[in-house]
Amino acid sequence: MDDIDAIAVLQDPVRRRLYEYVAAQGREVGRNEAAEAAGVTRTLAAHHLDRLTEAGLLDSGSRRLTGRTGPGAGRPAKVYTRARTERSVSLPARDYRTAAELLAEAAEQAGLDVPLREAARRRGESLRGSAAPCGSLDEAKEMLAARGYEPHEEEAEGAPRVVRMRNCPFHDVAERFPPLVCGMNLALLEGLFGADGPVAARMDARPGECCVVVEDSKNKDD
Amino acid sequence: MDDIDAIAVLQDPVRRRLYEYVAAQGREVGRNEAAEAAGVTRTLAAHHLDRLTEAGLLDSGSRRLTGRTGPGAGRPAKVYTRARTERSVSLPARDYRTAAELLAEAAEQAGLDVPLREAARRRGESLRGSAAPCGSLDEAKEMLAARGYEPHEEEAEGAPRVVRMRNCPFHDVAERFPPLVCGMNLALLEGLFGADGPVAARMDARPGECCVVVEDSKNKDD
Repeated sequence: MDDIDAIAVLQDPVRRRLYEYVAAQGREVGRNEAAEAAGVTRTLAAHHLDRLTEAGLLDSGSRRLTGRTGPGAGRPAKVYTRARTERSVSLPARDYRTAAELLAEAAEQAGLDVPLREAARRRGESLRGSAAPCGSLDEAKEMLAARGYEPHEEEAEGAPRVVRMRNCPFHDVAERFPPLVCGMNLALLEGLFGADGPVAARMDARPGECCVVVEDSKNKDD
Repeated sequence: MDDIDAIAVLQDPVRRRLYEYVAAQGREVGRNEAAEAAGVTRTLAAHHLDRLTEAGLLDSGSRRLTGRTGPGAGRPAKVYTRARTERSVSLPARDYRTAAELLAEAAEQAGLDVPLREAARRRGESLRGSAAPCGSLDEAKEMLAARGYEPHEEEAEGAPRVVRMRNCPFHDVAERFPPLVCGMNLALLEGLFGADGPVAARMDARPGECCVVVEDSKNKDD
């Protein structure tokens, strides 16, 4: 219940837009940029960004955004990133994280990787229901966003499109039991997107991100 | 994120007291009773109880609280219970429930009840840390409340004290995999209270409550 106040800060629609914008960038964001993205004045953006920081939802620091140093480089600007601390409230109280951790401990010892992946793939398929396999990377991004993965596209000139995800919905358990839980996550997404469609998921772990990337399935055999 | 507004309703301290009081009773509560418990007027309590109902945190109905019927029995009074719908917000987005469900499915198939209980007991012990075994039922109630179990004492004249719990923190997973998850829950609490202390947990499932009860350990062999 202690996180109620932090979460309630997002009731304000401007704060919510600012928070979502900063979270989606996955890097330090300055006040001007955030103000523009949220469609508000710099002063108002600064006020709300600082409220979000006080509530513990953003972290702030300062940096010279111009890249210049020395005299004439200007004052360092305040920049914001999404806070790493997890805030959560469940009513009634729920503690599925503890359940998942204890179950993962027992499952890892028993080497249940394969049956877990099978259960995850079936779950992904049943979430998709009777829909056709996911038809495009844009559709995949929407599906991933709806499940909290915070997808973003990696931009590299001339390279095929690759969707990466900033957030792992299973974060703490995945950190403790990476092969087991990341394998489960991949199978869940494979089931969700459907086999033999134009979109394919594969494992490509990077620190601080989800371990899965999504791309056109024809890239898969490159 | 859709539950932010519902959860933010509890920022108001009067609403929070009313919500917690109604949730703790585990039965229909009238406006007068709730007002008295929260230390506010009946009018203010009625206003906030209705706000909590609009937000989906309480359910309301009407009932003749006097027990009388027919002419002269008075108008039915409005009564409130805690809503059964789960509301939750995690920032960043987390979905440990899905992880727990998939892991439980694999663990149940593989018959991992015993290693899961061992992991849960170790977790309970490590949560207790270097503290002595739980010394009394009152201390046990505090520990259970802190973990969201919503303990309450069963009152039966002449009977030994028994602490029951209105809430199961593992609710959805326990409903789907009861022997596995309730066994895990019992082992977790056994570890938390410590063996050979004056407080003992045992299984005693009742619909809509946690499957474990806690009592003086000397009752255990009765």
